[in-house]
Amino acid sequence: MSERLQLHEYSPSGNCYKIRLTAALLGIPLERHEYDILKSETRTPAFLTEVNANGRIPVIQIGDRFLPESNAACAWLAHGSRLIPSDRFDQADMLRWMFFEQYNHEPNVATLRFWLAMIGEAALSDSQRTQIPIKRAGGEAALGLMDEHLTDRAFFVGESLTLADIALYAYTHVAGEGGFDLGAYPAIGRWLARVAAEPGYLAITA
Amino acid sequence: MSERLQLHEYSPSGNCYKIRLTAALLGIPLERHEYDILKSETRTPAFLTEVNANGRIPVIQIGDRFLPESNAACAWLAHGSRLIPSDRFDQADMLRWMFFEQYNHEPNVATLRFWLAMIGEAALSDSQRTQIPIKRAGGEAALGLMDEHLTDRAFFVGESLTLADIALYAYTHVAGEGGFDLGAYPAIGRWLARVAAEPGYLAITA
Repeated sequence: MSERLQLHEYSPSGNCYKIRLTAALLGIPLERHEYDILKSETRTPAFLTEVNANGRIPVIQIGDRFLPESNAACAWLAHGSRLIPSDRFDQADMLRWMFFEQYNHEPNVATLRFWLAMIGEAALSDSQRTQIPIKRAGGEAALGLMDEHLTDRAFFVGESLTLADIALYAYTHVAGEGGFDLGAYPAIGRWLARVAAEPGYLAITA
Repeated sequence: MSERLQLHEYSPSGNCYKIRLTAALLGIPLERHEYDILKSETRTPAFLTEVNANGRIPVIQIGDRFLPESNAACAWLAHGSRLIPSDRFDQADMLRWMFFEQYNHEPNVATLRFWLAMIGEAALSDSQRTQIPIKRAGGEAALGLMDEHLTDRAFFVGESLTLADIALYAYTHVAGEGGFDLGAYPAIGRWLARVAAEPGYLAITA
């Protein structure tokens, strides 16, 4: 790997952490550039023009090319590695959980953590406040589905850790910060411990 | 391909259409099973137990294995085909647009089509009604980003059609049904015509 790798990120974000965790598990060094999304540092003209027209982090920069979307960045990093199954069904099943994560999990579990732990309930808009019970129910449904799936499995796909686990781990292990009770999901609890025991594991605060 | 392929679907859904379009472009036959989501036919105990615990379509059934999530089903179908770039960056960049589709595009563009054209505005809940302007703005932002990207490109990634185009085409070409004005996005208009001209192309109503 000869090209310089730079991560444009807001480090408390689980989406950014996924990329750092993937890189750490594979022993790939990353340079890090921090943006404070609470100060709209990813909505400046310079960021929108040079880094991501979508105004979002994370973006991984590979040489002079920019790749937005956390799960796409993980797929680039893990290309050809043990973190992506080679079997055709398992590879698609890994993507299945990664799309589930972005559609059913992140907009609920991550958004409530952002609203409640980072912005603060008092500073939310009326529209955000009315969405809290909807997002709570959506997040609990996603966690319930994960817990059921993990009841008789060590990892989401196959017999070892894949990007599906990394994508879902990122916001699940800090879901308590968004008011979710992880004690209600015992199979998730065992899986979280399994992920954290992987050689090369890195904490979200590292 | 020796295993029987069955698509569990609600045929007007763009997510289901993506899978039919991918299969048609690759000449892969699919058996189709229709469920009426307006009658909650994907929330029955039998569906939840046998097809998808998440209660959603589409699900592609490969022999006796079930694979939910539209973009994962497309990836399974297109494995090793011309619809997935072999280049490492382009392959991740294709996934980038597919994750963008599920996160920024579908929850806005597809949801407004479902609410306004299928459920009907009069039958919406108050909570749904208050979300219309938010989803309108989100959908317009997604379409604007796509239009800008397509200004000097024929397809989303590389020089030919990939799953990124199929994923984004599905709900974009019927966005007018959700009240979006596609006339405001000329580069999208040219790209829609390009996709529809692909050999093997199939209409959403086919």
